[in-house]
Amino acid sequence: MLNHYAETYKNELLNEVVPFWEKNSLDKEYGGYFTCIDNSGEIYDTDKFIWLQARQIWMFATLCQKVQKNEAWKKIAMHGARFLEKQGRDEFGNWYFSLNQKGEPLVQPYNIFSDCFAAMAFGKLYEIEPKERYAEIAKTTFENILKRRENPKGKYNKIYRGTRNLQNFALPMILCNLSLELEHLLGSEQVDSVTDSVVNLIMNKFYHKESGLVLENISVGGEFVDSFEGRLLNPGHAIEAMWFIMNLGIRKKDIDLVKKAEKIMFQQLEYGWDNEYGGIFYFMDIKNHPPQQLEHDQKLWWVHVETLVALAKTYTCTQNDKAKKWFEKVHDYTWNHFRDKENGGEWYGYLNRKGEVHLNLKGGKWKGCFHVPRGLLEVWQTLER
Amino acid sequence: MLNHYAETYKNELLNEVVPFWEKNSLDKEYGGYFTCIDNSGEIYDTDKFIWLQARQIWMFATLCQKVQKNEAWKKIAMHGARFLEKQGRDEFGNWYFSLNQKGEPLVQPYNIFSDCFAAMAFGKLYEIEPKERYAEIAKTTFENILKRRENPKGKYNKIYRGTRNLQNFALPMILCNLSLELEHLLGSEQVDSVTDSVVNLIMNKFYHKESGLVLENISVGGEFVDSFEGRLLNPGHAIEAMWFIMNLGIRKKDIDLVKKAEKIMFQQLEYGWDNEYGGIFYFMDIKNHPPQQLEHDQKLWWVHVETLVALAKTYTCTQNDKAKKWFEKVHDYTWNHFRDKENGGEWYGYLNRKGEVHLNLKGGKWKGCFHVPRGLLEVWQTLER
Repeated sequence: MLNHYAETYKNELLNEVVPFWEKNSLDKEYGGYFTCIDNSGEIYDTDKFIWLQARQIWMFATLCQKVQKNEAWKKIAMHGARFLEKQGRDEFGNWYFSLNQKGEPLVQPYNIFSDCFAAMAFGKLYEIEPKERYAEIAKTTFENILKRRENPKGKYNKIYRGTRNLQNFALPMILCNLSLELEHLLGSEQVDSVTDSVVNLIMNKFYHKESGLVLENISVGGEFVDSFEGRLLNPGHAIEAMWFIMNLGIRKKDIDLVKKAEKIMFQQLEYGWDNEYGGIFYFMDIKNHPPQQLEHDQKLWWVHVETLVALAKTYTCTQNDKAKKWFEKVHDYTWNHFRDKENGGEWYGYLNRKGEVHLNLKGGKWKGCFHVPRGLLEVWQTLER
Repeated sequence: MLNHYAETYKNELLNEVVPFWEKNSLDKEYGGYFTCIDNSGEIYDTDKFIWLQARQIWMFATLCQKVQKNEAWKKIAMHGARFLEKQGRDEFGNWYFSLNQKGEPLVQPYNIFSDCFAAMAFGKLYEIEPKERYAEIAKTTFENILKRRENPKGKYNKIYRGTRNLQNFALPMILCNLSLELEHLLGSEQVDSVTDSVVNLIMNKFYHKESGLVLENISVGGEFVDSFEGRLLNPGHAIEAMWFIMNLGIRKKDIDLVKKAEKIMFQQLEYGWDNEYGGIFYFMDIKNHPPQQLEHDQKLWWVHVETLVALAKTYTCTQNDKAKKWFEKVHDYTWNHFRDKENGGEWYGYLNRKGEVHLNLKGGKWKGCFHVPRGLLEVWQTLER
């Protein structure tokens, strides 16, 4: 049984990780959150990245919804929402990539995931504070994402059209989760329509049958493309997507889909695991050629946290021993290496291949209040059930 | 004395590195060069990156000019030039970033360094094969670079104008070298005018007096900006720029400029040197905060090769003992770690912090026939003089 882990995850969430963000991240002067925080709690950069602003709103709103109605948490969610609502978008409703501390735009809306996380944030906020304008922001942002879907980077897309048109895994993957997150606003019909198409795309196109692995980029027609992008694997991405798909399978009572997602998850995990030093590689090349990403062999927090969620979900669905053993193995690696034994609080994010802390940060440009607390919450509540 | 190294560098260039590219890199079917070559000589990717195509043309033309009139080398330079001349540019004369094997465009001309290296290639080619159209390509490309200078990425620039306008070090740095490379086409007056302004910019603005270091990004007004980009240091970049500036100082018989460049070079080298494991860091943060670049602590070939060139030049200018000692130290590290003792040929490019080979490639998307042979040639000929 894995149930005894529930308490461990709950304690870490409520006594270490959430208090870290409550204490360190609020910008009381200009609104929004600081995310660039080092292991001494110092703010080392004040820029505001929309992904991370939105994710923290979502996280605190989710805590209110799923843990307890806590006014302090709600205030924190609202604090970020005020900032984002006022300063996060350009005149067309696209979400910027980043702002300076005061909220002035720094980087244009080239990155559709800013929009995805903003929709997620305001969708969740509406559930704890049902103001119509929050629902409106979530819905219009979601519609805009669907509109931009074929060319998410818009005019910032540097790819020459026609020679090698690729589609990337990240957006379909996020849509699996985002649609479910917004079901209360979109209605189940729209959720069905969006998720049926993306699940089909993931399980039949991005999933590469010959290798049993999920590709990060495929041709528009769904074929493998032998190039740097086409050969790229991101095991953590694929594993995270599989727990999104398990959730969709459970929602649709489609046991085959859940089983298929579990199977792919295990294949990714076994392939991505570093047998020499432990942990899961960040990037790999399906032909074992040198990848472009110089950081390919590093061990990243979100990869491991999302794997624990996927394994906890698998275990509760099937109670099988393989899930239990893998959960224990990944749990041990993750808690021993990413957790900050000295200072407590939020976990470290970036380890080198050997598992040593590579950057002494708790948050930065790409790491905020999201994967660690969401993962702890998901594992806790999954195993407690 | 360092002169005894001259022979070592010459032998490595002529017996190992040049033969590697002669043997492995020619695409006899579609023209141009392969650059993605692993340590067994296998071509693992066939895309053609304009930077690297142009640099190899330049390198083989330079060998013809500076080593010997070798018909085989000239043929190799012409082989790449035919491919690039036919397929490298868009309708406006901007150079693409990459092409597929056949020469069809893959990535749009968002990167002005494609243009810089193309101008360098055709400028040098004209010296060994004085066809007017080569001069024409080099000159019009150079004019286009100057026109695009204020906003090199053009419509692909994602920065929101007005909030934080930065200027980057790389273009002024390259212009120091490129102008000199094209002096036979531009005339000394234009070279003076371009280089005076960029040398002033580098030595008085990018050079940050308080720290004694060169910043990668400064405000348009020339100030330090406390942000990820503003705090960024790239010691190898700064060191390479200093040997370009030494060359300009020698050309202008400006001893003060040469001395100042030497001083800055040493400050960068001392700051960038990894006292624990040896080698020079790739990226650093001037406030010692966590940098964005996850690969920041890796050791890259070009950084070390360009440092050897800078030290050899410094030594021949001043004969000082500090330059000699540093040359020997960097030489030992570089030859022990980057050189491929097992297979010979071109050197490795990417080591982890501890100096272990990180990618088993001799060439890739960013590494081709350029820094190693150019560095070996420069050190050889500098020390032999």
